[in-house]
Amino acid sequence: MAKILRVNMLRQEVTEEEVPARYERLGGRGLTSQIVMDEVPPTCHPLGPNNKLVFAPGMVTGTAAASSGRISVGGKSPLTGGIKESNAGTPVAQMLARLQIGAIIVEGQPEEEGSWLLHVTSDGAELAPASQLKGKATSEVNKALFGQYGDKVGIATIGPAGENRMAMAGICFNDAEGRATRYSGRGGLGAVMGSKGLKAIVVDQANALGVEIKNAEVFRQGEKKLVEALRTDDISKPGGGLNTYGTSVLINIMNEAGGLPTRNFRSGQFAGADKTSGETLAETIAKRGGAGKTGHACHPGCVIQCSNIFPYEDGREHVSVVEYESNWALGANCEIDSLDDIAEMIRLCNDYGLDTIEAGATLGVAMEAGITEFGDSAGAIRLLREAGQGTPLGRILGNGAAFAGRAFGVVRVPTVKGQAMPAYDPRAVKGIGVTFATSPMGADHTAGYTICQEVLSVGGAMDPLSVEGKADLSRTMQAATAFIDTCGYCLFTAFAILDIATGLEGMVESVNGIRGTNWTTEDIQKVGMEVLRTELRFNELAGFTKVDDRLPEFMSYEPLPPHNQVNNVPDAELDAVFG
Amino acid sequence: MAKILRVNMLRQEVTEEEVPARYERLGGRGLTSQIVMDEVPPTCHPLGPNNKLVFAPGMVTGTAAASSGRISVGGKSPLTGGIKESNAGTPVAQMLARLQIGAIIVEGQPEEEGSWLLHVTSDGAELAPASQLKGKATSEVNKALFGQYGDKVGIATIGPAGENRMAMAGICFNDAEGRATRYSGRGGLGAVMGSKGLKAIVVDQANALGVEIKNAEVFRQGEKKLVEALRTDDISKPGGGLNTYGTSVLINIMNEAGGLPTRNFRSGQFAGADKTSGETLAETIAKRGGAGKTGHACHPGCVIQCSNIFPYEDGREHVSVVEYESNWALGANCEIDSLDDIAEMIRLCNDYGLDTIEAGATLGVAMEAGITEFGDSAGAIRLLREAGQGTPLGRILGNGAAFAGRAFGVVRVPTVKGQAMPAYDPRAVKGIGVTFATSPMGADHTAGYTICQEVLSVGGAMDPLSVEGKADLSRTMQAATAFIDTCGYCLFTAFAILDIATGLEGMVESVNGIRGTNWTTEDIQKVGMEVLRTELRFNELAGFTKVDDRLPEFMSYEPLPPHNQVNNVPDAELDAVFG
Repeated sequence: MAKILRVNMLRQEVTEEEVPARYERLGGRGLTSQIVMDEVPPTCHPLGPNNKLVFAPGMVTGTAAASSGRISVGGKSPLTGGIKESNAGTPVAQMLARLQIGAIIVEGQPEEEGSWLLHVTSDGAELAPASQLKGKATSEVNKALFGQYGDKVGIATIGPAGENRMAMAGICFNDAEGRATRYSGRGGLGAVMGSKGLKAIVVDQANALGVEIKNAEVFRQGEKKLVEALRTDDISKPGGGLNTYGTSVLINIMNEAGGLPTRNFRSGQFAGADKTSGETLAETIAKRGGAGKTGHACHPGCVIQCSNIFPYEDGREHVSVVEYESNWALGANCEIDSLDDIAEMIRLCNDYGLDTIEAGATLGVAMEAGITEFGDSAGAIRLLREAGQGTPLGRILGNGAAFAGRAFGVVRVPTVKGQAMPAYDPRAVKGIGVTFATSPMGADHTAGYTICQEVLSVGGAMDPLSVEGKADLSRTMQAATAFIDTCGYCLFTAFAILDIATGLEGMVESVNGIRGTNWTTEDIQKVGMEVLRTELRFNELAGFTKVDDRLPEFMSYEPLPPHNQVNNVPDAELDAVFG
Repeated sequence: MAKILRVNMLRQEVTEEEVPARYERLGGRGLTSQIVMDEVPPTCHPLGPNNKLVFAPGMVTGTAAASSGRISVGGKSPLTGGIKESNAGTPVAQMLARLQIGAIIVEGQPEEEGSWLLHVTSDGAELAPASQLKGKATSEVNKALFGQYGDKVGIATIGPAGENRMAMAGICFNDAEGRATRYSGRGGLGAVMGSKGLKAIVVDQANALGVEIKNAEVFRQGEKKLVEALRTDDISKPGGGLNTYGTSVLINIMNEAGGLPTRNFRSGQFAGADKTSGETLAETIAKRGGAGKTGHACHPGCVIQCSNIFPYEDGREHVSVVEYESNWALGANCEIDSLDDIAEMIRLCNDYGLDTIEAGATLGVAMEAGITEFGDSAGAIRLLREAGQGTPLGRILGNGAAFAGRAFGVVRVPTVKGQAMPAYDPRAVKGIGVTFATSPMGADHTAGYTICQEVLSVGGAMDPLSVEGKADLSRTMQAATAFIDTCGYCLFTAFAILDIATGLEGMVESVNGIRGTNWTTEDIQKVGMEVLRTELRFNELAGFTKVDDRLPEFMSYEPLPPHNQVNNVPDAELDAVFG
């Protein structure tokens, strides 16, 4: 029977509880959101003693299920003021699941400020002082802790940004080889961890019992169907788009669609797109050789393997991973077209513990204010260092784009619910704008990725410039996403299951096999919608209204080249998403 | 017939309109709030092109009505995100009224950044470039403009804080002798003025027709009753508490009541209270002589005369005015007990264009974060200079206490709706907490001053530590205040009219005489409540909910010495204020 670890930072005490029956059909996002709803007062201060931080592996995580090494982290967000779930792909997720830990709940605050470490083993868990790690970069933390606990453990940590309680601080997990590079980046959950004095979690899966599987046959059968679909689909298959170019394959695609936000959302096309594209990225990695790698897996057991390792010119490892969103945020959005400079900025974000999306959007706002020039990568790097060092300017930047906008008096701030938009301009792709506006998470592409239908022609094809049907599309995608995030599957399984019916069946059957549920594919929307309703209810109790489900005002009067469209999705269409 | 001046900053054009019939029974706050409701989209960006800034003298302003030289400024607040009205006592109010200008509406934004000046005379009004004033302190602006336009004009201006679009920037009006010291301080309306490129307004009342009075006899009769009451009441009469000691008379009173917030709201009593009290202030002014003065009037025709001029030790003028709220915010709240240092900080706030209450509360939060020490006046002065200069640290501070709290990760932030609480701790005086929580303006003592009944035994006596009846009390006081702010009377007339029935009658009759209304004292609540309902409706449309009508969470778990009470006003009591 799975258990919950409850870590009380005030009493410096860890207790174990059985997972209550009402949580049995939950995992990942479904579980973190439910626990946050049940235990966190919606109006509490996100950095105060009454907020909690919840870690939960997905329902299928830790098994042989393909591409399922996801961990969800939940709490009340210091960035949005609403509920937050942010998930990452990492072996840590798999280890917790194999230790039969359904969730870790971190609560309270120590009386005196300090740094602690949680050590989780099959024998139990305990807190230990960790003042030696205070202020350390995530890569240094990983080096120290792998040295101390052996290279088989998993590590979750925050960088200086989280310790400084910055609202763009993420929580960093190690990748398959121990790099401090996999992030629950969005919404400032790193600051919540910092506010509790918890610098790191070390997970040792030695002697783990493994995930309990209710019906192995059902699981194997479902899993087989899903893997087949993943290996067939053009986007997710080995040698497919994601595997070959990584997510940066989207740079050229979105640029051609006129929806690649450039120069702080002033244009939908970037002159430097080709220099930063997935194709150029893969070519550069291949040409430089050495430590460079495409088709890298963030955790063992991934079929898709879309990650990469970007090398310096001489072949030494520079950073993992140059993802599309990071590439865009720190590149196109700042008019920076050097992959090496972008890689260096990603490395800094990884080390300081900053969300790359929020960081890039914030740099765009700072450039808009004239703090440094668009295209000036040296200036951008200097600003990121200020954020890492927690200088006054760094504290402005480290609190995100909306915050920086207020600090500098900038009106053109691309945020919803205080969270920066990812790499799709809603004026050029209307459905993703509906997701940005209405997701309980704030602007988030992963919350309901309508780019599938609107740009990639996956799961059907819809005109990105048309408003029609986008409320329904966004709702369906948001619910499906909530289901996938609850299972613990990587969102990139979606491409295959949207187009291949047996893949979809297989996904549901794999969950049934593990958890003993008897869901059909018909249940996906229902299960996902229940998770969303919980999140929406939390936000409502936290004071959110329909007014928070709106895109930034400037997008309603400033047309975006090349389509020269403004945001024209009617409020009624937005309000129709969740009724 | 009164007119409205409409100043379009995009087209650089001023037009005149008749005051529409539906605004006939409005002035001051009632008029600014109604125009904001009618013309400003509640969800617009406060610093964007769709916000407007509205100036309106009160209904009786510009006549012989005692203590009535008030001007209201309204708009959507960059500090709270809701509607804002902030009023000041100044000859400028009287001049506009005598020019029969019911309101000035400033709208739009210039295409290029710049500084302009609005020159208002009996012949009309026009915009002129004012780049020579860019970045200038308010005292320098006044010096330059009195030099250029003569010493008979009135001046409204913003300091560098407003030009830098800081959310604690106020709008500064001259006092009776031309000092740049009278403020519509709260809510960041100076930033709205700055966002429109309007640096100053010069008002020349030469050849003004004067305020139209519908029935001179009724007016004279009412006015006589009101003046009698003001001259009788112990607090407002010549030689009374306000006239002798200024508003700082409250330092000792609130300290004894255990409700003088000290050290960023950690205690209700301040060891340095006696050194900063109104009594010590008056003594010091008397002892030093020279330019010092108590019983100073902010505008001609004030019976109460509660302002003061604080001198340096050698008698040279240092600053006007050491008010209770400024004294507390920059003194007790920061544990600073030197009147000279407090005076210097007020001078800096006046010059930079900063709201002293928000400034002091923000310094308290910065001290809480360790940016400088409590009690360190040199450090506090240095921080205020940073705000004035717009350095990165200054931009954090200049955006207010809630903003600084986020920047520094401080949880103990004494704000409601993003606006800092004034000098009364709601844990020790429950009714004022109800006003702080529920006023559409954010935490604001002037919005419904229950201190009258709870501490001063004016208008009845109620136990400050009891919750009972405080919703009713707050509502009644909020409505009465909205009425007074609409008339254009100084709020300090309230002491007399609460206890002297003929004073209350006189106030209403004076309005009837001027505007031809036929209100009775029974109408005060109705008229005031209509203004409040308009403001509440704007806030609702801007996305406010009951969750915004709450005191900060930390006050619910942190008891305040010496009474050691937490905030215990039930949510239901708060929600009962406006139903």
